[in-house]
Amino acid sequence: MIAATDPAVAAAARERIDQLTKPRGSLGRIEALAVQLCAIAGGLPAHNFERRAILVAAGDHGVAAGGVSAYPPEVTAQMVGGFLAGTAAIGAFARAVRAEVFVANFGVRVPLAAHDRLIDVNVGLGTANLALEPAIARDAVDAVLAAGEAAYATLRARAAFDVLALGDMGIGNTTSAAAIVAAFTGSPAASVAGRGTGIDDAGLARKIAAIDAALARCSDFGWDEIASEMGGFEIVGLAGVMLAAARERVPIVLDGFIVAAAALIAADIEPNVRDYFIAAHRSQEIGHAVALEALHLEPLLDLDLRLGEASGAALALPLVEAAARMVREMKTFAEAGVATEGT
Amino acid sequence: MIAATDPAVAAAARERIDQLTKPRGSLGRIEALAVQLCAIAGGLPAHNFERRAILVAAGDHGVAAGGVSAYPPEVTAQMVGGFLAGTAAIGAFARAVRAEVFVANFGVRVPLAAHDRLIDVNVGLGTANLALEPAIARDAVDAVLAAGEAAYATLRARAAFDVLALGDMGIGNTTSAAAIVAAFTGSPAASVAGRGTGIDDAGLARKIAAIDAALARCSDFGWDEIASEMGGFEIVGLAGVMLAAARERVPIVLDGFIVAAAALIAADIEPNVRDYFIAAHRSQEIGHAVALEALHLEPLLDLDLRLGEASGAALALPLVEAAARMVREMKTFAEAGVATEGT
Repeated sequence: MIAATDPAVAAAARERIDQLTKPRGSLGRIEALAVQLCAIAGGLPAHNFERRAILVAAGDHGVAAGGVSAYPPEVTAQMVGGFLAGTAAIGAFARAVRAEVFVANFGVRVPLAAHDRLIDVNVGLGTANLALEPAIARDAVDAVLAAGEAAYATLRARAAFDVLALGDMGIGNTTSAAAIVAAFTGSPAASVAGRGTGIDDAGLARKIAAIDAALARCSDFGWDEIASEMGGFEIVGLAGVMLAAARERVPIVLDGFIVAAAALIAADIEPNVRDYFIAAHRSQEIGHAVALEALHLEPLLDLDLRLGEASGAALALPLVEAAARMVREMKTFAEAGVATEGT
Repeated sequence: MIAATDPAVAAAARERIDQLTKPRGSLGRIEALAVQLCAIAGGLPAHNFERRAILVAAGDHGVAAGGVSAYPPEVTAQMVGGFLAGTAAIGAFARAVRAEVFVANFGVRVPLAAHDRLIDVNVGLGTANLALEPAIARDAVDAVLAAGEAAYATLRARAAFDVLALGDMGIGNTTSAAAIVAAFTGSPAASVAGRGTGIDDAGLARKIAAIDAALARCSDFGWDEIASEMGGFEIVGLAGVMLAAARERVPIVLDGFIVAAAALIAADIEPNVRDYFIAAHRSQEIGHAVALEALHLEPLLDLDLRLGEASGAALALPLVEAAARMVREMKTFAEAGVATEGT
């Protein structure tokens, strides 16, 4: 069970923030973030969230064979190599925000060499093609979710962290994510399917057709049906990671579109998980705004990113620390001896 | 003289960024920032901008006696004490982004105690009331600008930094800033005068009347006339800091509305200074968007901030480091052995 955060704790945090030496509300979104961090902690956080981990969930997608991506499927494994070597964007960003990058392999098509920051919980060498059949066998969905929970436990054993940023890697996975968002929100495929890594018009048409085919197979639109029909291994795995992190009351910084699709699955399983979500940014990918709205989340950043890899989530981590330091370290008007408004 | 950045260097940076292991353009605004950092450096930067200084320019405003602020004027000096003690918002944020906070006193009403992070270049104990007379005597304006250049030189001697974030403190200074923005852009006072720290309708009407009175005294609308009529000491001082920093090719991260007004003054003196400006965020203060548009700047963050103190500029510093690390540390598709688009 995931505990809902306590509105009374949030109200107390709000009251404290209103007494700090600044005009009320003048730190805008950072104030709201600080309130959420207090609510998650059940009071003033005990730390500034300087211990931060980034987990990138990787998996391959059968639908990638259907010409829905600008890149060939072997790029998933190649990019994972770059994440672990520190030569990809998330490596550069992680160093900029003083975080460590871990990769959870939920289903890359090829076996990956062991690495101390690779958590290998592979549940299959790529999903099936969602345009033709369920991406994940219905009776395997629970195991993928459990693999996510196991990945979280392994991460816990390997790294000390107070906040967790989540990202994704998987050629073809914007097709899965768009199908998931369409299924949960009732949006037409065309309104949530974007150009991903940069496909052309014909590729986009194939993507929409694939999503429509998967949607047509759904009947009850519960999370397990949607996870099975749409996949992917890394998306369902991420939902499991989220549930495990929220049970430990760890704030979860969501990257972009794919992670938002995973968040919709997690929220369908345990709605209280949403109290632990921090939306890092608004992606260029058109379906992301739809997913964020369904999750009732307002993103912190709007930098026209559309990479994935937790790149946007990484950039939001300093804002989490800033919010925590604001509420923990600033003095009130009374404490600082500063004259107040209206005196 | 401030050198314009070289478009050929920017183009070469753009070309390198397009070869890095990510879809083209997928890091959005961070890519544009990286191009600018390369253009400023004249090539790949030699470092990641981890050495960062924050300078908060402080000064008092005669117009504060006219009921245009929700706070009494003594708050300027009290808040400066908080900046130096580390108990204000900028202290919390600076620690979150690993930067040191310096204060330049350009004209606080009361003498300030010496401090190793206080740069005391006081040019007068507060400006005159711009609603009634020029805020700064016309023949004193050059000296205030020079005080800004001197403050920069002192900061250089006291701190090692590769990027400079600028902020402000001065009760009443949104009135000066709004008057400056109105004067440079031809906007009506009502479209650039906001609620600052949180004034009521009557206060806002007084603020607009004060701005209109100052505008009515202008004739040629050159920077020195505008600086003299509108003030304030810290705003004109900031313009001097900007010119000195740009001469050394140091990227300048602008905070909110008041710093943008100073940037308009600096750009009127030496238009090339704009090549060194990075707009950190879009403030809640309504005139800020007008100023940014006049400066042709697109802000990085939009967090509903309206505090000043360099709080927004501080939060943008990790993005500068992330952009530098992206262009300096990421491998290209060829270097990383990753399959490229369309293969």
